Amino acid sequence: MRTRLINEGPERTFALILDSGDEVVSALEDFAAHQQLEASRLTAIGAFMRCTLGYFDWEKKDYLRIPVDEQVEVLSLVGDITLDEGKPKLHAHVVVGRRDGSTRGGHLLEAHVRPTLEVLLTDSPAHLARAFDPESGLALIRPGA
Amino acid sequence: MRTRLINEGPERTFALILDSGDEVVSALEDFAAHQQLEASRLTAIGAFMRCTLGYFDWEKKDYLRIPVDEQVEVLSLVGDITLDEGKPKLHAHVVVGRRDGSTRGGHLLEAHVRPTLEVLLTDSPAHLARAFDPESGLALIRPGA
Amino acid sequence: MRTRLINEGPERTFALILDSGDEVVSALEDFAAHQQLEASRLTAIGAFMRCTLGYFDWEKKDYLRIPVDEQVEVLSLVGDITLDEGKPKLHAHVVVGRRDGSTRGGHLLEAHVRPTLEVLLTDSPAHLARAFDPESGLALIRPGA
Repeated sequence: MRTRLINEGPERTFALILDSGDEVVSALEDFAAHQQLEASRLTAIGAFMRCTLGYFDWEKKDYLRIPVDEQVEVLSLVGDITLDEGKPKLHAHVVVGRRDGSTRGGHLLEAHVRPTLEVLLTDSPAHLARAFDPESGLALIRPGA
Repeated sequence: MRTRLINEGPERTFALILDSGDEVVSALEDFAAHQQLEASRLTAIGAFMRCTLGYFDWEKKDYLRIPVDEQVEVLSLVGDITLDEGKPKLHAHVVVGRRDGSTRGGHLLEAHVRPTLEVLLTDSPAHLARAFDPESGLALIRPGA
Repeated sequence: MRTRLINEGPERTFALILDSGDEVVSALEDFAAHQQLEASRLTAIGAFMRCTLGYFDWEKKDYLRIPVDEQVEVLSLVGDITLDEGKPKLHAHVVVGRRDGSTRGGHLLEAHVRPTLEVLLTDSPAHLARAFDPESGLALIRPGA
């Protein structure tokens, strides 16, 4: 485990309210680029009209795509925004709820909002950067980078 | 997407520990009214003796009720408290875990705690208000309101 | 419900990045002991190579163990670190996602990371202590203690 104190003073918190048709990954990364966010964390609830989730296949070192082509409640969306090669990168995982109360979940690859997604984002005055990890093939956060 | 900086200074954080028999929605809204909370976010874990979840039916523009009549772990409860017609309104989604590890989830309509629910609530010195959205029939957060 | 304001000033936030093979409960409790954390809250996402979840059996007053012996996405890990008999105690619940997008969840008993777990932990300059609750047989947070 590697650790880093990323804040001990005031932080900024934003309410981001996404509307019908907004795509979550691009909307949040565009916001982060505009606001120059480099070490943010977020939670969200709301609903999607459809989304694509991912499961990281450890053998193939790639994400399997899991399409969810129905209106779902967003039960939890938890994630962070860090820097990957100098650009803001959203890493978020999501659990969605179906009509019968059953759930699906995975890495958030793409999601279209309907009618709302309520995101509470807290930004620390630090930066956290990702670096390529040869073992997994993923860009992982390196707190000291 | 509409965004608003809701805080850049110190915030208040409360630990709210609900006990057996407490009903979650009413307990949190009563607390918010008493403390005059107008832009809060919260996460919680614990357990329910029973709860009623909701799924928003986009065709009917109403919540289907999904009763969960068994003791369940509260795996995640994520939400916010904002103002709706001047009164504090809890909007929370929950994932619960059953005896076999399977899960159910939805919009939190009602839940009775057993034996505990540990809520960590952070309040921003701002206010966020809801307004009626004609397309969905729901009261959605309008950050500029 | 019992409530307590645990902070109204600056707080410390840590990024804790766990690596392949790290065990989550021991890593977080060791960190908390080292940093003398007494009232922290955390969220995390990432992936486990395997984990053991728990469901509290209200009749037996004990946790049923639910082994998950496969690589899973950590969709949400929500919890707190408080004091139990003077030592830091992690209480966390987790939802994990399987290869087909289905989910499992429970009280976090043990989990081994692969390749990463990204924990954002916020510590309040207060302390929250647990006390034995005769009705459940569990150590529950007592905000006034």
